[in-house]
Amino acid sequence: SGAAAGAAASGTKIEWTLASSFPKNLDTIYGAAEVFAKRVKELSGGNFIINVKAAGEIVPGPEVMNAVKNKTVQIGHTASYYFFGTDATFAFDTAVPFGLTSRQHTAWMMHGGGMEVMREFFKQHNIVNFLGGNTGTQMGGWLKKEIKSVEDLKGLKLRIGGFAGKVLSKLGVVPQQIPGGEIYTALEKGTIDGAEWVGPYDDEKLGFYKVAPNYYYPGWWEGGANLSFYINAEEYAKLPDAYKVIVETASLEAHTDMQAKYDAKNPMALASLLGNGAKLHKFPDDVMMAAFKATQEVFAEESAKNANFKKVFDSWITFRHNQMQWFGLAEKSYADFTTANPWKP
Amino acid sequence: SGAAAGAAASGTKIEWTLASSFPKNLDTIYGAAEVFAKRVKELSGGNFIINVKAAGEIVPGPEVMNAVKNKTVQIGHTASYYFFGTDATFAFDTAVPFGLTSRQHTAWMMHGGGMEVMREFFKQHNIVNFLGGNTGTQMGGWLKKEIKSVEDLKGLKLRIGGFAGKVLSKLGVVPQQIPGGEIYTALEKGTIDGAEWVGPYDDEKLGFYKVAPNYYYPGWWEGGANLSFYINAEEYAKLPDAYKVIVETASLEAHTDMQAKYDAKNPMALASLLGNGAKLHKFPDDVMMAAFKATQEVFAEESAKNANFKKVFDSWITFRHNQMQWFGLAEKSYADFTTANPWKP
Repeated sequence: SGAAAGAAASGTKIEWTLASSFPKNLDTIYGAAEVFAKRVKELSGGNFIINVKAAGEIVPGPEVMNAVKNKTVQIGHTASYYFFGTDATFAFDTAVPFGLTSRQHTAWMMHGGGMEVMREFFKQHNIVNFLGGNTGTQMGGWLKKEIKSVEDLKGLKLRIGGFAGKVLSKLGVVPQQIPGGEIYTALEKGTIDGAEWVGPYDDEKLGFYKVAPNYYYPGWWEGGANLSFYINAEEYAKLPDAYKVIVETASLEAHTDMQAKYDAKNPMALASLLGNGAKLHKFPDDVMMAAFKATQEVFAEESAKNANFKKVFDSWITFRHNQMQWFGLAEKSYADFTTANPWKP
Repeated sequence: SGAAAGAAASGTKIEWTLASSFPKNLDTIYGAAEVFAKRVKELSGGNFIINVKAAGEIVPGPEVMNAVKNKTVQIGHTASYYFFGTDATFAFDTAVPFGLTSRQHTAWMMHGGGMEVMREFFKQHNIVNFLGGNTGTQMGGWLKKEIKSVEDLKGLKLRIGGFAGKVLSKLGVVPQQIPGGEIYTALEKGTIDGAEWVGPYDDEKLGFYKVAPNYYYPGWWEGGANLSFYINAEEYAKLPDAYKVIVETASLEAHTDMQAKYDAKNPMALASLLGNGAKLHKFPDDVMMAAFKATQEVFAEESAKNANFKKVFDSWITFRHNQMQWFGLAEKSYADFTTANPWKP
């Protein structure tokens, strides 16, 4: 603390650029970087400035991780599963199909060994990672036509990000990688049959309900999508100790704040979507089961050929198993009752 | 930020005493105050010191709120529902029967208007409140004999804290207020028929499984028990602006950290309890439904006679209703599937 005091008091001036993978209109997810930057500035007495840039301002959204790695920017805010093509291990820091929920992921990272294994992995990419938000369990997305069984997935062109595409391919889906801004037109023209995005609050803005009204849940490929702040390792090493503490605490505040915002905003957006004609559907049981089996196959294949993946997976799967058993008792039975028995205002 | 910078740089020396309502052996819940104090010290460059005292060291556990109100200590860490006898409104800051889950409570406080209404309430008691941890949905506690239906509750002597006793009284239970350290002996002697505490990690330490092996879930009176830091309003007003920022961000870190610790630790403790003979039971459906109805009656009665309670309840119940509808879709269907279909390590 003596060192920290000295550094803070000396008022070392530092100015960083943060590249976000998200546009400003996704105010919840983009906003997490602003919450973080504001707090860093306040806690450093205005000496440590982080300038937040939206996707495309300096770095295209999908290039943020590379920009951090290569020191084009000092820090990025993104979903690491965008980079699963480089190494599937990246996906664990965001979400993998049938993975951890928001609370479970936070527990894994903070007290379940997750931060240690992920830091070791990101070190290979010259990056230090910090928690930076979660969306909660996402919705499964929008389909032009209803699906009744796993057979209906065959040949379906779905816009879906990241690792989940590999799993859906095994079920006959033809995954499409399309930037957020182009999805609506693709759905309208029928170039694609469906698209997943996030949840009601973000989905409403893009208007998918007008052209693909069947709204599926749950987004089993994103039981909780975690965002992180990624810092170039050399730039991080140069920070005074006091600023390292500031980064850690401010990122965690942004982390908690983003989930709270989504939770507070999603219910009203869902009501609005339903009022505008969105039709809710739960994924058929056989779709869920086939997807779960395909996920386990994909994980076995990946573990066999990728030592990084296997190392993280071995930590993660044990933690996941224990979490699901525990969450299946008090949390689940409480949710079962409270969601089935309305207490009207 | 100019003001903040000045205050931080000037290194204003402040030393506070924090009274916790918890003993050191409850390391997760007691530990949240230590996490907070450590971060406050680091972020202030060692200038703002908070000395954490366990229950009884300076203030008895149940007296912490009064000690803060009366400035015996500057800050406390406790569960405000211990003080529901003074005003039932206190219960909303911790947990009320069939209330918000951990994530939902955090969302209510941070982005659902909860912080505003609770701050207004605590102002009457000369206190400023900050989030300070959550246990998640608790277990329903330990019973010497099984209960098969709501009839079996009649005459049962249960050790149960806070507001839930009022609800259980309506079902024939005779609530007992017994400090943690005396519960085991009371169960062993048969002075009481059962006791609720927290969840596996804390419950295991007290050894209840040896004398009352029937372990019930869910703890419907604590769908998520929130802890807070309570600061004497005059002492808070005296803080430099920079230290107010530090208190806010450090308390939020302790808040998130405590839930993550419980989530990480509970599964192993549960496995150990089951290995030692604890028998899991879900509360019978008719018990849940009778308790829910009794809860609504108690809330109507309290709202009719207590303007403070009614004001908070009106904010809370609308938020709760919307949350439960939303959490009933993606989150719940995801939990249904992932807890029913094991993915073995």
